[in-house]
Amino acid sequence: MGWTYEKAGVNLAKHWEMHSIAREIIHGIANELGIRLIEGGFTRSINLGNYEITLHTDGVGTKSMIAWSTGRLEVVGWDCVVGNVNDIACDGFTPVALTDYIAISSNDVGAIHKVLVGIRDAATKAGAVLLGGEVAIMPDLVNGIDVSCSVLGIRRMRVAGDVRVGDVVIGVESNGLHMNGYTLTRKVLLGRYGLEDEVCGDRLINWLLRPTTYYGDLLIKLYDNKLVKAAIHITGGGFTKVRRVIGDLGVRLEVPEPPCIFEVIREVGNVEWSEMYRVFNMGIGLMLIVGGEYVDDTARIIKELGLNYWVLGKVVEGGGINILMPNGFNVRL
Amino acid sequence: MGWTYEKAGVNLAKHWEMHSIAREIIHGIANELGIRLIEGGFTRSINLGNYEITLHTDGVGTKSMIAWSTGRLEVVGWDCVVGNVNDIACDGFTPVALTDYIAISSNDVGAIHKVLVGIRDAATKAGAVLLGGEVAIMPDLVNGIDVSCSVLGIRRMRVAGDVRVGDVVIGVESNGLHMNGYTLTRKVLLGRYGLEDEVCGDRLINWLLRPTTYYGDLLIKLYDNKLVKAAIHITGGGFTKVRRVIGDLGVRLEVPEPPCIFEVIREVGNVEWSEMYRVFNMGIGLMLIVGGEYVDDTARIIKELGLNYWVLGKVVEGGGINILMPNGFNVRL
Repeated sequence: MGWTYEKAGVNLAKHWEMHSIAREIIHGIANELGIRLIEGGFTRSINLGNYEITLHTDGVGTKSMIAWSTGRLEVVGWDCVVGNVNDIACDGFTPVALTDYIAISSNDVGAIHKVLVGIRDAATKAGAVLLGGEVAIMPDLVNGIDVSCSVLGIRRMRVAGDVRVGDVVIGVESNGLHMNGYTLTRKVLLGRYGLEDEVCGDRLINWLLRPTTYYGDLLIKLYDNKLVKAAIHITGGGFTKVRRVIGDLGVRLEVPEPPCIFEVIREVGNVEWSEMYRVFNMGIGLMLIVGGEYVDDTARIIKELGLNYWVLGKVVEGGGINILMPNGFNVRL
Repeated sequence: MGWTYEKAGVNLAKHWEMHSIAREIIHGIANELGIRLIEGGFTRSINLGNYEITLHTDGVGTKSMIAWSTGRLEVVGWDCVVGNVNDIACDGFTPVALTDYIAISSNDVGAIHKVLVGIRDAATKAGAVLLGGEVAIMPDLVNGIDVSCSVLGIRRMRVAGDVRVGDVVIGVESNGLHMNGYTLTRKVLLGRYGLEDEVCGDRLINWLLRPTTYYGDLLIKLYDNKLVKAAIHITGGGFTKVRRVIGDLGVRLEVPEPPCIFEVIREVGNVEWSEMYRVFNMGIGLMLIVGGEYVDDTARIIKELGLNYWVLGKVVEGGGINILMPNGFNVRL
């Protein structure tokens, strides 16, 4: 039997159940207070004066455990900000302000400094001020360091219409694992390799600590030019996140060869392909859904910003998420 | 040698050092982006359209470990929201929206539900919508559950002038430990007592899981009536937090007998009184600094909201924080 995310300790079905409970509580509070929630694909927002604002929180997951063990913690701060900014940018929001939360097992001032340097680099890039944060020193509760960020965003961009059959799905390259699937990755790879071992032409540590790609500027430019109908930051849940924007429709995607590191995880862990696409970004950190007439303009802007892309396929009638791999293997999610 | 917070694993000096690094990074980002930060006693804010907004993050600390071990997790959600709301209300902000972040060691849907119920109760009380959150299932990183919240607040109230010599310090009762000093409390008390043991006339578990008092409505009423010059939510750092609003001035406080549970912690752990006032709220969850002519009106409103208070003392020239205890013992912080 191969490795699964569940065997590594993360049950995605239970995770969705938690989200569904949260959704009910969220709507209960809003109803009780008489406040209208605006539901986006990946965010919720409200009106505040002349602004539509969203508040969004996400953490770096157990990528921080690898960063902690090697002292290379700047990437954790960077990812924390970029992950949130990418999420809200997919729904048309740009970040205004943020806070961080760091739970740490020791009084390690140097570690905190490194995380904050990473936060600074990403925050200045994204144009968001850091308004505060909390460091909780909790030796009994945390094994190393856990970092999450909260970002306040304001509506800047609007989508270019509703997603419909025939729309084109474009995939934009990721920079590796980004910040997802680390609980599975650690179980699979660290049982076989040391962090200093060479894998796929580089030390494993370098593969595992590559920073998450910042898609904020790209999304602003695409949305401002009214090119994009929906954008999906491929994070937790992998390709299944596409469902949140296609509703009852489906997609048929011809994906490129996944980067070597994903192939190694699959092979060493004997992980099913479908599980891989449910957990990882598989080399595609962002998906865009665009009307056919806008594919060329979209592609040009992606290239201008120095990113690679693939035209993956189309939106179709129903049928969920259909992935055709270069090896001829077909994955349905 | 008695117990100290440091011996329990939390070095407050290092914690301040972390905050000071954070402050530098925060101002670096704002300068880089050309955004003006407004510094409050316990918050930072910016202008956004017609609003002055703050974003604030705080966690529940290791109180969650006791809640986790007993399954009584609603209090963790409640505290998470109330702690943040009390903090921002001290600086004149009322909450608009919030998010939560939960790191948990297992796929425990029931635990998440209980935390969210506590969040709902506090959020509806405080008038803030929950816009989202994250549940991170990380068996290798977290021992139980860690919960933090981020709150977006808007400026509603203004202080009634600058703090000056002769102003009166009023203390408002806490409901017990609230959410601070649990790493020390656990080390000291759980080495001696079981959670079901009777201490101070109740089971220890009940003392340790009492919800944090919500001071939001009180602070709104006091500020709206222009009665208060400064308010301090006594949390991490205990009475030393007063420094953040008195600058170079000092305070002389005649404090009441601390509630029994604090006396037990001190006695069992052989903790210095000064350490107690540096770590715990000692029965006073909120301090208010008011002009002498407003003491009666302030007291009336506190009583109207069903809370007890003490006129603790006055603001004086320099000399830091001077605490005179009923037993005649004098603590200087």
